[in-house]
Amino acid sequence: MALRIALAQINPTVGDLDGNRRMIEASLAEARPFRPDLIAFPELALSGYPPEDLLHHPPFIRDVEETLGRIAADHPGDRILLGAPIRGDDGLYNAAVLLQGGRAAHAYRKCTLPNYGVFDEKRHFRAGRLCTVYRLGRWRIAVNICEDIWAPCGVPAVQAAAGADVMLNISSSPFHAGKGREREELIRYRAWQHGVCLVYLNLVGGQDELVFDGESLVFAPDGELLARGLRFETDLLILDVDRPRSPAADPSQAPAPPPDGFVQPRHEGIEEIEDELRLEEIDLGPQDTNPPPPLPRRPPQHRIETQEAEIYGALCLGTRDYVRKNGFTDVVIGLSGGIDSALTAVIACDALGAASVHGLTMPGPYTSSTSLAGARELAGNLGISLASIPIDEALAAYRAMLDSTLREKRLGITDENLQARIRGNLLMAHSNALGWLVLTTGNKSEFAVGYCTLYGDMAGGFAVIKDVPKGLVYRLARWRNGRDGGAGPIPGDTLERPPSAELRPDQEDSDTLPPYPVLDRILEARIEREEPIERLVGAGCDPALIRKIYGWIDGNEYKRRQAPPGIKITPRAFGRDRRYPITNRYRGS
Amino acid sequence: MALRIALAQINPTVGDLDGNRRMIEASLAEARPFRPDLIAFPELALSGYPPEDLLHHPPFIRDVEETLGRIAADHPGDRILLGAPIRGDDGLYNAAVLLQGGRAAHAYRKCTLPNYGVFDEKRHFRAGRLCTVYRLGRWRIAVNICEDIWAPCGVPAVQAAAGADVMLNISSSPFHAGKGREREELIRYRAWQHGVCLVYLNLVGGQDELVFDGESLVFAPDGELLARGLRFETDLLILDVDRPRSPAADPSQAPAPPPDGFVQPRHEGIEEIEDELRLEEIDLGPQDTNPPPPLPRRPPQHRIETQEAEIYGALCLGTRDYVRKNGFTDVVIGLSGGIDSALTAVIACDALGAASVHGLTMPGPYTSSTSLAGARELAGNLGISLASIPIDEALAAYRAMLDSTLREKRLGITDENLQARIRGNLLMAHSNALGWLVLTTGNKSEFAVGYCTLYGDMAGGFAVIKDVPKGLVYRLARWRNGRDGGAGPIPGDTLERPPSAELRPDQEDSDTLPPYPVLDRILEARIEREEPIERLVGAGCDPALIRKIYGWIDGNEYKRRQAPPGIKITPRAFGRDRRYPITNRYRGS
Repeated sequence: MALRIALAQINPTVGDLDGNRRMIEASLAEARPFRPDLIAFPELALSGYPPEDLLHHPPFIRDVEETLGRIAADHPGDRILLGAPIRGDDGLYNAAVLLQGGRAAHAYRKCTLPNYGVFDEKRHFRAGRLCTVYRLGRWRIAVNICEDIWAPCGVPAVQAAAGADVMLNISSSPFHAGKGREREELIRYRAWQHGVCLVYLNLVGGQDELVFDGESLVFAPDGELLARGLRFETDLLILDVDRPRSPAADPSQAPAPPPDGFVQPRHEGIEEIEDELRLEEIDLGPQDTNPPPPLPRRPPQHRIETQEAEIYGALCLGTRDYVRKNGFTDVVIGLSGGIDSALTAVIACDALGAASVHGLTMPGPYTSSTSLAGARELAGNLGISLASIPIDEALAAYRAMLDSTLREKRLGITDENLQARIRGNLLMAHSNALGWLVLTTGNKSEFAVGYCTLYGDMAGGFAVIKDVPKGLVYRLARWRNGRDGGAGPIPGDTLERPPSAELRPDQEDSDTLPPYPVLDRILEARIEREEPIERLVGAGCDPALIRKIYGWIDGNEYKRRQAPPGIKITPRAFGRDRRYPITNRYRGS
Repeated sequence: MALRIALAQINPTVGDLDGNRRMIEASLAEARPFRPDLIAFPELALSGYPPEDLLHHPPFIRDVEETLGRIAADHPGDRILLGAPIRGDDGLYNAAVLLQGGRAAHAYRKCTLPNYGVFDEKRHFRAGRLCTVYRLGRWRIAVNICEDIWAPCGVPAVQAAAGADVMLNISSSPFHAGKGREREELIRYRAWQHGVCLVYLNLVGGQDELVFDGESLVFAPDGELLARGLRFETDLLILDVDRPRSPAADPSQAPAPPPDGFVQPRHEGIEEIEDELRLEEIDLGPQDTNPPPPLPRRPPQHRIETQEAEIYGALCLGTRDYVRKNGFTDVVIGLSGGIDSALTAVIACDALGAASVHGLTMPGPYTSSTSLAGARELAGNLGISLASIPIDEALAAYRAMLDSTLREKRLGITDENLQARIRGNLLMAHSNALGWLVLTTGNKSEFAVGYCTLYGDMAGGFAVIKDVPKGLVYRLARWRNGRDGGAGPIPGDTLERPPSAELRPDQEDSDTLPPYPVLDRILEARIEREEPIERLVGAGCDPALIRKIYGWIDGNEYKRRQAPPGIKITPRAFGRDRRYPITNRYRGS
């Protein structure tokens, strides 16, 4: 008889044990009529992922355990695999807890703990050593967690050697552009490599800087896609697995090269722990042999193919969840008439609905009428409210107040920053008075080189496009404008005119910065690939320019350290992902 | 013949390879006339500690290796043990590199990698497996690095079992209050436990949030203190070790209980790695038998005994190094007449000299004449410049500007925050115009519960007393006032009057917050000890109050994430030390 598995691709909130429990119970209720043999939830679904140092608060762990016990006791008829932190004799484990017969019957403890990039799992967890295979009737079900499946051998190899038919991996795998395809190639390859039906369940939702993009996947050992969950949305997949282990991939045979169409995954940075692993086989008893009701037919979802669509989806989900999970309903955005604030506003509207988004224009002495018109046109196109407060009165006051101490030094960059800071203050005043979250509008290129004002345009609770380089800002804006047919919400003039901060007469970004395509190329080399200057010089870039930009990046860490969080969409985002010191005199290359 | 060891307790800067090399060479030149058998430098002294993700930039590692080679080649007559990151076949190691005969002759690779609190060493390094014992003539010298010596057995036990006479530990051990005594008890205990002369070398200096406090130590196996380096200052210790291994502590014998006067160290959180370790013995050739010149007599330094003196020393060093290593000469501080800004200004003067410190008073509508007088008296006592800029003009402008959108909602907390933000803007204008670093003045109690204004009083480059709870602010102020005899710089009225933000008429902190002694007690329980509410209730605190304060702590992570860095002085500081999520609905207990 086929093995019926339900995959609950849910969107929990870190720390919200009661809310997460209710969400889990709703999935149980939804799946129950189809009588699955097993219903699985993502990695650390009960606590939310990543709970960070909340894991060090013993009452939280106690409450997790109590909630686990309650879910088990209240649902004795379900067989549940639930990601949760659990205590062992010697510390905390990242576990997949099996609830059966009204109690926590067993737990698989994650063996491969990522401790790079955004991950700090060795800070929080001890590593398991036992590779679990559950026997359920004639089925042998291997269970592992996220990073376990990324390792070239490790846990899955031990489980496959023990004759697993089905391998279930519960993950909380954060998004960056291209990660969807990478993950799909990995899962498909591992299904073939280990000769198993590979059932991959991913979390969905935003948590501070991270977006978990869902898109759970099921692959047969021959590489056939059996199921694909929704991307950037919650989902409940129920499927019948009826393919036994592939004899072709018998692990006692020498490994064959992958057939055409399989992409061998890279595994740089993945830890190898083969020597320490042992097999553990657990008998769950017989499978329920009453035939379950038939499943509704549901073809696999289509993959999101374009990079822009994928990134845009992540930005919308990350924004919606940061706003809602932190208890806000409305947001306010300073609309300058420029491309960054326009894209931010469009994302906010798609994420929250136009009624929850409020625009504020704050024209100053150097604001062009084109900019103001662009902000108004955008607000009109989006159907959001727009208020306007000129900054001149406060600017005149500051100029007068600073005259006694600074004299002519109050001009130049000081005066430019003051304009940005007055705008920051006005936005924050609306936040304080009306309870709106301020969305900041800076892009990754600006944050990288410090072309932004601390407490000015950097002020706000969430920086939606913080990890989006300027060139990609334009590509996303054009893609979004073309998405639904028609002209799209962002005015043509906003897309076409040269970018400017408008903080002094006739200012353009290109007065200070190299053209954005050149800048973005150098930034990507330094930030995402840690390339030496020589390699860029070899590729035709000006060495003095590269050196200057590398120096700007290092020299502006102090600003970024005070920036609001924003959504990671590249392989290396500022924040918890890229951790450079502020005090750092390295300017070598 | 005795073994002569030189300990260079230096203060390098992260990333400054040329500067650090020159500092190392200056120590070599200073020690050379005394012809030490070995001169040692602290953990990662060449790169600075902690270099964080700069370690992931391959050109930096290449430059480290080139600098290592240059130091070796330029000093073929010296035997040098130098902390540096080095590449192995399979990744990066935290190493003690032995330079001898003009080349890098060997390297010990740190085996015990801390990955908790402020430490992320498993993010950056692989763990070594070989426990090195060098033979130099008749001496057997064990070398290990920082965390290795904190483990109850581990590397030192393997080295002691191999007959080491002398154990040299090079460290970069960050300060918190009480750490000096804890470290001294540990080193003394380990000397007895392993029957060796234990030579402990610690880094000195500030690096972003961390202060390394120096105070290198040498203990004989019987617990006698042979040397103590300066605390919070650079030092060069040269000493002759002439005590062979203690036969009483023969590791083949059953371990004896520690004699009276030895404190058994705690080792919670220290990883146990015994199973994986192996011994490695390296012959360095004969000892130079020409008698070296006699050493000048130098009795061990006294320990700093009072907690206030110790913390104050850390705050001064941390402030001086953050300012200077980031290329600033001068700082500006908003002086309110309150205790926090007063203490910050006094620390700045002690750290940088009064000529480099600039005060700014920014009276508003609710500033009392007492406050203004206090600020003036403080500036006079310290001999720092003081300018005054009333904020009323800007406040009037904002109030008028916000009337159209906010009406009566522009009052209350919105208006209070505006006053703080105008002050933040004025300080930042002086920073922009004059190149002065703004020192912020918030204390740990405020940051913990969010009793501070983002972009207002939180604005600035460095938050000197960020990790100092309010009660300790008072104790430090009183201690400093009494330090040199006389009345001290902080006016009596500043010390005596009830704290107030002065943002509305007759405001006092106690309108919003519980009395600081109660607040600080609850904060310490939650932040430093992660205590459940029940334990505090059992100790007589009001459950509703604790719950409210626990909620404030969790609910204000978003503010702290945008706070400037400040100096860690407690076992658990906000920042890289305590990493809670912003989005976090846990409010259980």
